[in-house]
Amino acid sequence: MARWEPDARQRLERAAIELFTEQGFAATTVPEITARAGLTTRTFFRHFADKREVLFAEDRATEAAYRLMGEAPPDADPLTLIVAGLRALAAERFEPRRDDLRARRAIIRSDEGLRERELRKRGALHDVVRAAFIDRGLAPATAALLAEIGATLLYVSLEEWLDRDDARPLADLILDTLGELRAVLTVSPAPADR
Amino acid sequence: MARWEPDARQRLERAAIELFTEQGFAATTVPEITARAGLTTRTFFRHFADKREVLFAEDRATEAAYRLMGEAPPDADPLTLIVAGLRALAAERFEPRRDDLRARRAIIRSDEGLRERELRKRGALHDVVRAAFIDRGLAPATAALLAEIGATLLYVSLEEWLDRDDARPLADLILDTLGELRAVLTVSPAPADR
Repeated sequence: MARWEPDARQRLERAAIELFTEQGFAATTVPEITARAGLTTRTFFRHFADKREVLFAEDRATEAAYRLMGEAPPDADPLTLIVAGLRALAAERFEPRRDDLRARRAIIRSDEGLRERELRKRGALHDVVRAAFIDRGLAPATAALLAEIGATLLYVSLEEWLDRDDARPLADLILDTLGELRAVLTVSPAPADR
Repeated sequence: MARWEPDARQRLERAAIELFTEQGFAATTVPEITARAGLTTRTFFRHFADKREVLFAEDRATEAAYRLMGEAPPDADPLTLIVAGLRALAAERFEPRRDDLRARRAIIRSDEGLRERELRKRGALHDVVRAAFIDRGLAPATAALLAEIGATLLYVSLEEWLDRDDARPLADLILDTLGELRAVLTVSPAPADR
């Protein structure tokens, strides 16, 4: 629509994260967010259903993931596909926003309802990746396993990246986590009780 | 307390699952459950906070998991510990209740609130296993990775086991899933874009 729309969305996100951090999620109102951003309430509701959804706008990542997987060559190795997809996601959507993502994490941890919403988001992403692998012809159990691997690589690496202070990019931490996952699973023999 | 208490709990669980299946979760009341079980409402509330919690009584599995991990030898290999713990859990708590667990899964899928509660339960189990590994001296990222592996092995195997009709025990499917996890992770080389 209007040329300033993408900027409005970002300004609203930034203002909301600032206010949630300063005064708490529950205490912050939509009019306060729009006042901080210098925009109208009407503009706010053109972008977000409510103040909570400002923190979960990345749910469009779910659509993006599904689309990306549909576009990949049919014979692409599933793990390569997951790792390449996550590294692209990391570079494009996460790495430019490290401070905001840290603030977002602290806000979500502070509120039970937000923690539940975050779990639902992770569940939705898992379901989409699983469905996309089933569409690619994999057995449901294998598709579920790959979706779990994807979630593990993303969320373990993301936590680590937000905890760290060095310059190592998230995309590289994803490869580190993959290496550690392989090491943990291969060092041990099959359990002795069998 | 009284000698019949464990039996009362089981009768309430069975009655609740039957009624939720027959007439839906939302339409079922606590008095209906206690009438079906031949017990009083007072007895119900000695065991469960509300009708929803009948489906999540296994939350005590969280305490059991933490305790078990504390009792394991300090030098036990983490993956062996996870696999042995899950196989014990499978044999003791899941395998005797396959039909009830199938019915439970269908009930939970039917209700958004129950799906969220289930996600929270999984989150709590993850947090407990992660904390137990940190107590054992592992780095937080490694502990998180191991908790993710445990959740993956359990939930992927459990879904597969509930979908299947053969006699293969859940404890063995957990080993199958571990094998498939290793295969998926080792077949592929590191991603080519690096």
